Amino acid sequence: MKNIFIIGCGMLGSSLLRRIYIKKLAKKIFIYEKSKKNIKKIRKLKLPGVIVERPQEAVSQSELIIICAPMNEYKKIILNINKSLTSKHIITDIGSSKLKSIEIIKKNLKKNISWIPSHPIAGSEVSGPENGKQSLFENKWCVLIKNNRSNIKHLKFLSSFWRKMGSKIVIMSAEKHDKIFSITSHLPHLIAYNLVKSAQDFEKKQKFNLLKYSAGGLRDFSRIAASNEIMWRDIFFDNKSNVIKAINLFTKNLNAFKNDIYSKNNKSILKKLIQTKKVRSKIIKLKLDVNKPDFGRN
Amino acid sequence: MKNIFIIGCGMLGSSLLRRIYIKKLAKKIFIYEKSKKNIKKIRKLKLPGVIVERPQEAVSQSELIIICAPMNEYKKIILNINKSLTSKHIITDIGSSKLKSIEIIKKNLKKNISWIPSHPIAGSEVSGPENGKQSLFENKWCVLIKNNRSNIKHLKFLSSFWRKMGSKIVIMSAEKHDKIFSITSHLPHLIAYNLVKSAQDFEKKQKFNLLKYSAGGLRDFSRIAASNEIMWRDIFFDNKSNVIKAINLFTKNLNAFKNDIYSKNNKSILKKLIQTKKVRSKIIKLKLDVNKPDFGRN
Repeated sequence: MKNIFIIGCGMLGSSLLRRIYIKKLAKKIFIYEKSKKNIKKIRKLKLPGVIVERPQEAVSQSELIIICAPMNEYKKIILNINKSLTSKHIITDIGSSKLKSIEIIKKNLKKNISWIPSHPIAGSEVSGPENGKQSLFENKWCVLIKNNRSNIKHLKFLSSFWRKMGSKIVIMSAEKHDKIFSITSHLPHLIAYNLVKSAQDFEKKQKFNLLKYSAGGLRDFSRIAASNEIMWRDIFFDNKSNVIKAINLFTKNLNAFKNDIYSKNNKSILKKLIQTKKVRSKIIKLKLDVNKPDFGRN
Repeated sequence: MKNIFIIGCGMLGSSLLRRIYIKKLAKKIFIYEKSKKNIKKIRKLKLPGVIVERPQEAVSQSELIIICAPMNEYKKIILNINKSLTSKHIITDIGSSKLKSIEIIKKNLKKNISWIPSHPIAGSEVSGPENGKQSLFENKWCVLIKNNRSNIKHLKFLSSFWRKMGSKIVIMSAEKHDKIFSITSHLPHLIAYNLVKSAQDFEKKQKFNLLKYSAGGLRDFSRIAASNEIMWRDIFFDNKSNVIKAINLFTKNLNAFKNDIYSKNNKSILKKLIQTKKVRSKIIKLKLDVNKPDFGRN
């Protein structure tokens, strides 16, 4: 049993907090949260744990440190806790783009400190400690990042830790992680933001009240496009080169679709529409989504 | 109480059938269904109604005719039933693009026959009579199309009919309908198909197993991209000019997003990400989607 320090207690951080507390995985849980608004919420929700005023306060008393703050806070946090860190500290973070965060960590973290990046695939469109829940990681994949210099003991500890959070573990390099998620997560978010933006532009120009008719597809995109703007700006910027490659692939395919429609190319369009259908069945088979029409919404 | 004839008994047609039967809205319900596979299903499901072998058989015995077949079947159906139609028949269809369907109707329907197009916003990714349900139209919008020559008596009858199906009614021109739905429904579907296609291309090239990580956003798109390919090919082709305009607006905005990312334009990207968030709150306020994170899936 170790003391655990959660830095950043929003939706994800507070979900860890709840789970750690319920599963009795720590003697003490320390929390650092920058936002006063969130601290008020944490107090109102009567979440467990000791809130510290500065991140450096709890480091020497903790064995496991989990950074759940936005990526643009990493540098400041590292510089604050650096002094108190030892090679025995098990450190991880939950950021969504890994090459850039590792670059920041390398640049700022003092030497001979181990840091194993994590990425639990458990985000949603809501944020803040009021939206956390202990079951958030249940049956979700958690990616752990490994390279030649990773501390295998710490990696094993974190695998076991995330399993206790309910997650399934997969280990890969930061390069592979950032490529995969540029397609399965970053591009879908950007596309959803862009679709909703286009609908807004259209509404403004045509003076139609569009939203009434959003059940035809638009409402699905609006959910993803309601995600935290700071987090997503960071991801788009930090995984820039993969995201731009993904946009280019998407645009190329969209132009081909446009040509199919323009020339009414029946054979070409049907081939694509039939092909894409298969992905849904695979996702359902892998139990990665609910097997109900319309997500069982109605 | 009238006799009702449903031509095409897939997901939507069979939902009408179930509702009409439960609400006792017809003395007799006739069904024509082209697909032998679907007829087998209808029999196995013991759905009510009299199945006729050719669409012309039930016309003279019916007062209300509802076409629930794919748009590319309209011409054939009209030519088949034309002879038996009278000015007293109340005729509607449920197709998703209206200017093109009206063009087909005008070209083929014999003179002085009234036809009021309908569009219930109740589609989903599943099709076939086994996926119909009597509550499908509950609290959903149903668009009725009106022009200068619309038979107002029939329009009123159909408004009342759709209300009995559970729908809320809105009346507009075919031009307006096709513009609105090119943005709220046709573009989102095309974009979802295109995103899934891009993920498939990426997977093939990189030889990564992507789907495992689809919970980060991709899985949402996979649901829409599993929609019926014949229906959607028809919609994209039939509403071609509006869909192409929508693609162009989308592409213009996507290029702007790409530039923001490329140049790390913090101000510009944040403005958009904050702006798009508002659409979700409006949709929730209008009760057009469930007010639960992640559609309440987990």
